[in-house]
Amino acid sequence: MGEAPPVKDHLLISYGSKLPHWLLEETQAKFPEAEVSVIQLPNFAPIPAEIARKATLLVTFSNLPAPEDASKIKIIHSFSAGLDHLLAHPIIKDTTIPLTSSSGIHGPPIAEWTIMNWLVASRRFIDTHNNQQKHLWQRDENIMETVHDQVGKKVGILGYGSIGRQIGRVASALGMQVHAYTASPRPTPASRIDHGYIVPGTGDHDGTIPVSWHHGTDKASIHEFLSLGLDHLVIALPLTPQTTRLLGAEEFEILSRGVPSSRPRPYLTNISRGKVLDQAALVAALKGGVLSGAALDVADPEPLPADDPLWEAPNVQISPHVSSAGREYMPRSLDILKVNLGRLERGEKLLNVLQRGRGY
Amino acid sequence: MGEAPPVKDHLLISYGSKLPHWLLEETQAKFPEAEVSVIQLPNFAPIPAEIARKATLLVTFSNLPAPEDASKIKIIHSFSAGLDHLLAHPIIKDTTIPLTSSSGIHGPPIAEWTIMNWLVASRRFIDTHNNQQKHLWQRDENIMETVHDQVGKKVGILGYGSIGRQIGRVASALGMQVHAYTASPRPTPASRIDHGYIVPGTGDHDGTIPVSWHHGTDKASIHEFLSLGLDHLVIALPLTPQTTRLLGAEEFEILSRGVPSSRPRPYLTNISRGKVLDQAALVAALKGGVLSGAALDVADPEPLPADDPLWEAPNVQISPHVSSAGREYMPRSLDILKVNLGRLERGEKLLNVLQRGRGY
Repeated sequence: MGEAPPVKDHLLISYGSKLPHWLLEETQAKFPEAEVSVIQLPNFAPIPAEIARKATLLVTFSNLPAPEDASKIKIIHSFSAGLDHLLAHPIIKDTTIPLTSSSGIHGPPIAEWTIMNWLVASRRFIDTHNNQQKHLWQRDENIMETVHDQVGKKVGILGYGSIGRQIGRVASALGMQVHAYTASPRPTPASRIDHGYIVPGTGDHDGTIPVSWHHGTDKASIHEFLSLGLDHLVIALPLTPQTTRLLGAEEFEILSRGVPSSRPRPYLTNISRGKVLDQAALVAALKGGVLSGAALDVADPEPLPADDPLWEAPNVQISPHVSSAGREYMPRSLDILKVNLGRLERGEKLLNVLQRGRGY
Repeated sequence: MGEAPPVKDHLLISYGSKLPHWLLEETQAKFPEAEVSVIQLPNFAPIPAEIARKATLLVTFSNLPAPEDASKIKIIHSFSAGLDHLLAHPIIKDTTIPLTSSSGIHGPPIAEWTIMNWLVASRRFIDTHNNQQKHLWQRDENIMETVHDQVGKKVGILGYGSIGRQIGRVASALGMQVHAYTASPRPTPASRIDHGYIVPGTGDHDGTIPVSWHHGTDKASIHEFLSLGLDHLVIALPLTPQTTRLLGAEEFEILSRGVPSSRPRPYLTNISRGKVLDQAALVAALKGGVLSGAALDVADPEPLPADDPLWEAPNVQISPHVSSAGREYMPRSLDILKVNLGRLERGEKLLNVLQRGRGY
């Protein structure tokens, strides 16, 4: 009578540096029935046979075992959103162990990073901070000219995926109009649904936030989108041969011309990759007042050399490719594994799973 | 046959300094049928008779005409949210000219100021900015410990009025839980409605955003609210004898004890008045790690003297009582006048109108 006790899972986390104690505690709490262990390995180092053989669940950035040592492994879950770096490994080619990504967890932190940068720029936080450093309680006499807010402003999101959707959600709450751009057309409600993992309480699952949808991979379609009168352009595209240097001097001009002269010039946000734009043209557009400012979490190259003119371009805010990072990153990645473990037990389709043979 | 041509309105704006050209253009565009003129007067200076007599609409902070010169004035609209400073004037006591306030327009800028400060603190923007000043592309090795985001965090809003509602709206979009506190009980859906002016596309008209509502004016009720496990406390109360020094060392301790040790200590935001809290106790709570930080647009006294210890309290961000200021302030105030002009013509009840004899 009764059910057999479930087989105890052995969750192995492989990581490049020591993990903090609280993270292990949170992990154990998330998987109360599992034995949790951690191995510290350099990038792409193989997981030793005797350790791999005990694991039933493996979480890693780039460490994989040989196929013959993975007989107990039910799911391999990657901490990263992309899986490209793992695809050549024998365990992907020669086994059918599901490989899942952390796609979908980057929305909240990157949206926060984006909104923070917009507001720091539009509300001139750096001036406020500098006055505080000097213990100076001083109002800017020209505050009616220099500070503006986001209500009624238009944001165009080039790449309306999980990250763009959370930016859209917060932008809409701020009172902004959201315009979405995707590579392929999304003409129907069904085509606008986000089918990937979504951090609970965030995102735009149904795709109902944008006031307009646009699409295309050709220059003319992009130019039409850039002409909408956008106060903000957010670049959230993947870097591909087609998106490399997608935006340059001409595009910045088109973007700027679309906005009535009574409004500030457009503000550019790049959370994609440095190479999606012509960085020299961006510096020129900022210096020339074609754009009013830019928030950049990426650059070309990275690390950005100390003598690069981008550092001193007017109203640019640069961070070192960290917009997704923070305390919640790994716990949230493990949430996907937890959801998928339940799905596996119930025989359901896994989230974020690699479709073998499709290359992504 | 046909309608008589409408009598042309004469909109008089009285202000303490020169108004920028774009604002006059925007005003004229907002009231295309009206003649718009501007007079520059010191605070509380009377409006000269010959000018007042021509006006049919008056917009001002503190300049009023004598009652006998106001025979054509249909509405007096104040740029400020409160009307207390005007109540003793004969034009209020001896005429029935409607007096309207700008209550309701402060939500968007103050919510932006609030969210900006939260994110600057939680994402350690000042470190990022300092590295940029040094042209240093450097990731914080401890970013998994030092940066956190707002998803799932709880914010308690002491004073869920038009400002608190817009903060709640954005907080909810960020994935946070909103807990509302009001002086009087709001047990029914009807009691939770915001009946004042709301900037289109913002706010929480129906009061459906909070996950819980709390109320009371006694210490026990406040303490119960502070015990909810709030990651953020926002003080958005009016300053009254009852709210003066409402929060001190004991309250900061209660707030902090409510939050599990696995989460950062609570963050305090004050957009009310400096005197709602015990500032020395706040400095001590920040130094002692009872609170993780504070965003303060107000201080006691103002201006805050250069040698006040608040300037150097850990993780405090101070601005000089400017959170509502910006380019949109006056146009938005004029939007209320425009709505009310339509209501007056249709014989409807005005928004934000002083109820004479009620004292507000």
